[in-house]
Amino acid sequence: MKTLGQLAEIVGGIVIGNNDMMIIGVGSVKDGAKPGSITFAESEELHTAAEMTDVAAVIVPKSITKSSKNLLQVDNPRLAYARIAHEFMPEPLKTGEIHSTSVIHAQAQIASDVSIHPYVVIDKGAIIGEGTVIGPGVYIGQGVHVGMNCEIHANVVVEYGTQIGDRVIIHAGAVIGSDGYGFVTTNDGHYKLPQLGDVIIEDDVEIGANVTIDRGAIDSTRVGRGSKLDNLVHLGHNVTTGPECLIVAQSGIAGSTKLGKRVTLAGQSGAFGHLTIGDHVTLAARGLITNDVEDRMFLSGAPAQEHRKDYRIKASVRKLPELMKQIRNLEKKLVELEEKLKD
Amino acid sequence: MKTLGQLAEIVGGIVIGNNDMMIIGVGSVKDGAKPGSITFAESEELHTAAEMTDVAAVIVPKSITKSSKNLLQVDNPRLAYARIAHEFMPEPLKTGEIHSTSVIHAQAQIASDVSIHPYVVIDKGAIIGEGTVIGPGVYIGQGVHVGMNCEIHANVVVEYGTQIGDRVIIHAGAVIGSDGYGFVTTNDGHYKLPQLGDVIIEDDVEIGANVTIDRGAIDSTRVGRGSKLDNLVHLGHNVTTGPECLIVAQSGIAGSTKLGKRVTLAGQSGAFGHLTIGDHVTLAARGLITNDVEDRMFLSGAPAQEHRKDYRIKASVRKLPELMKQIRNLEKKLVELEEKLKD
Amino acid sequence: MKTLGQLAEIVGGIVIGNNDMMIIGVGSVKDGAKPGSITFAESEELHTAAEMTDVAAVIVPKSITKSSKNLLQVDNPRLAYARIAHEFMPEPLKTGEIHSTSVIHAQAQIASDVSIHPYVVIDKGAIIGEGTVIGPGVYIGQGVHVGMNCEIHANVVVEYGTQIGDRVIIHAGAVIGSDGYGFVTTNDGHYKLPQLGDVIIEDDVEIGANVTIDRGAIDSTRVGRGSKLDNLVHLGHNVTTGPECLIVAQSGIAGSTKLGKRVTLAGQSGAFGHLTIGDHVTLAARGLITNDVEDRMFLSGAPAQEHRKDYRIKASVRKLPELMKQIRNLEKKLVELEEKLKD
Repeated sequence: MKTLGQLAEIVGGIVIGNNDMMIIGVGSVKDGAKPGSITFAESEELHTAAEMTDVAAVIVPKSITKSSKNLLQVDNPRLAYARIAHEFMPEPLKTGEIHSTSVIHAQAQIASDVSIHPYVVIDKGAIIGEGTVIGPGVYIGQGVHVGMNCEIHANVVVEYGTQIGDRVIIHAGAVIGSDGYGFVTTNDGHYKLPQLGDVIIEDDVEIGANVTIDRGAIDSTRVGRGSKLDNLVHLGHNVTTGPECLIVAQSGIAGSTKLGKRVTLAGQSGAFGHLTIGDHVTLAARGLITNDVEDRMFLSGAPAQEHRKDYRIKASVRKLPELMKQIRNLEKKLVELEEKLKD
Repeated sequence: MKTLGQLAEIVGGIVIGNNDMMIIGVGSVKDGAKPGSITFAESEELHTAAEMTDVAAVIVPKSITKSSKNLLQVDNPRLAYARIAHEFMPEPLKTGEIHSTSVIHAQAQIASDVSIHPYVVIDKGAIIGEGTVIGPGVYIGQGVHVGMNCEIHANVVVEYGTQIGDRVIIHAGAVIGSDGYGFVTTNDGHYKLPQLGDVIIEDDVEIGANVTIDRGAIDSTRVGRGSKLDNLVHLGHNVTTGPECLIVAQSGIAGSTKLGKRVTLAGQSGAFGHLTIGDHVTLAARGLITNDVEDRMFLSGAPAQEHRKDYRIKASVRKLPELMKQIRNLEKKLVELEEKLKD
Repeated sequence: MKTLGQLAEIVGGIVIGNNDMMIIGVGSVKDGAKPGSITFAESEELHTAAEMTDVAAVIVPKSITKSSKNLLQVDNPRLAYARIAHEFMPEPLKTGEIHSTSVIHAQAQIASDVSIHPYVVIDKGAIIGEGTVIGPGVYIGQGVHVGMNCEIHANVVVEYGTQIGDRVIIHAGAVIGSDGYGFVTTNDGHYKLPQLGDVIIEDDVEIGANVTIDRGAIDSTRVGRGSKLDNLVHLGHNVTTGPECLIVAQSGIAGSTKLGKRVTLAGQSGAFGHLTIGDHVTLAARGLITNDVEDRMFLSGAPAQEHRKDYRIKASVRKLPELMKQIRNLEKKLVELEEKLKD
């Protein structure tokens, strides 16, 4: 619990109302807001809606000055809301202790102030940074470096050699550093091509549940700083992304493809291997990138095309049955005309 | 092993033949049936096929009265077969014991008659109901409630606050309650929006292997009573389903979309977020729902449309190359006509 | 570290240069090659590129005889490279020991020379073959047979009854033997149809991270010898594949479909259930097989068609907006002609 004044200080905002109002949590106008909670409203309309709920306070832009609720004025209400929500976020994995059942190799280095849960296994040469939290059943492989203030959820597997930066969040069941999919095919079968590279996860990355990220064949598979991978995403060997990419649930990027910065791949999308995708590219859900993509393109479709072109084509496709009738009519009329001409 | 008479009692059926015949298991006409097994036949034709196998007995509708095999007459042969198959189903996880290596928080409550396997971790405030079975390596987070007679397979992760009803089956590797995918994007990056809701799994739900279900942003993500999720399905934050939905392998539903009751999403399908999908809606495999859907619609395609319309369009698309030739012919004929007219 | 001569002996090649040159690892012309490493070049052009790197030696076809680098002549440079890469592959899971925290049932049989990591659980009646390596947190269910020289990564779950051959590699988080998705639907709900079959994984199979393979309903789900499944692949109950199939990331095969030998399903593809797919069939990425497929077909699209036909159709679809203009012009011209004829 925090007072409105304390929250204002955290986000650098101005209180119009009662600084000492106790705030018990965050709420949403749409999904419900308990008495004593705080919500945000980016417009006068949404503010009016917020006034009709039980919230104790509303985070608003500086243009909103009058309210039946306490106000907290900020430059970016949505961001301030996110920051305040952090104050109320439970941290169940933060114990500050190393559980006695964790098996930690004598040649692993564990910083102070970590939280290590039951049945964690940390292998030879691994390094765990300060403040990092590791949930139950996690396996940290040989030579893995995990930075500071990371949050690794239960049953995650981090295979040998993986390098993880600071403030990285990895959700349960993710696998980082499995072998890339590489074989030499002969008449006798598919001979396994050893995958001798590694995986580098840069700072501030968040990786969803049951994600799979393969180690590189020679060099590294790399997830760029501040990128966010949703659940069940797959990155093939030697994929690299620039910073702040958003890769939504169940998408997959085939091996050796390079993403620029702030690339957004919407849900269930994909990209072929060995491609170069520029900065600020957006791919719509279910899209499939099959060629290099220039900066700032907005693509959709499978294969993906520039969005308006794809939209135009899809609109035409929907009209196809009528178009076929039109063409049959044209043929009929043409035959009639030919008949008339003969006469 | 059970006698035919005992099985008849279980399903409320009538034996025509030997009540004391020992039945050793179930079999399938198509896939093989060992001597002494029981199978089912919904028609005279299938019954004849069954007579040619080694089965000891056949479950049949009441219209079938004569056979070279023992008969078990019921109203619904397929359902009776399923009930009888339960009698022969191994229950390897049911030990009736709490393994000494399980780490159970002092403030967790475990009912009697549970089966808890090695290396299970049950966190503070968790409650496990009677008869429930928890396989090796499972993590039950803080404040999680698991109902009675549930079956949670190895290495499942149930994050804090999740509520699970009775008779819920969760297959290995599933993750329930990972953070929803929510960020506030600014020039400085994607700031994490804490996900403060939870997940509610109602009674009689079955969840497949390596499924991911995110907790709500504020409120709950909810899987309705009797719904069945297949492997590798993903539910985004605040998705809710009505009862008895069927969501087939590798499908994904984006955040805040609501499904009615008895919605069927076939394999590898998807739905955008913030939609309302009615009752008894069916979506074909690979379909992608992009708008609200009314009750009882049968949809296909991506984006999904009413099935017959989608089918008509797809049929037209397949004829497109020939259509293009037709149009070139039309153009030629038109030019010829214009020439003739000039003369 | 090995000498070039030792490597030549392993692959049956001929050294042109210094037999005693120490080789420290493998490298790639494209992705970087450290001094002292060995790479391969399949053509004179690629050999020239290799000469410009720091490699100590190049594996080449017998047609290349002169070089500024040491040469290792072989019949198949790519295959020889893969074999040599194996010599430099770390084997972090190979400890030769059974960790004291592993819980092994008294009635399980463990061969000699196995490596079993912390927190492995091996259930009653399981058999583990010689030389096999089992990573941390793995669950081997009742009656599971694992062959020789297998490599099972952390947190894999192998459910009861599964049969695994020799030299099988299973990457982290995979689930083998979860229940197939089978229900009998009545007015009262979807009644679970017990899945009483098992899973057979033949020799030399490799299974990717977080893969799910369901047990059969009665009989077996079977992955044929030498097949390679990439991450997040799903096989429904009673799917069977012939030998040496390649199933790329995030693909899914619905229940009871049978693949022949050397079938390749590219990334994010799928196949309906109860189909028969012949030998040497290739399906392009995102393809969806909806009918039986004959041997040697190359398919693409969803639904999948013969590739050239699909390609022709997709090319026509892209021209649709222009086609619609063409048709409007035709209609205009036709109307003009009709007018002229009247005159």
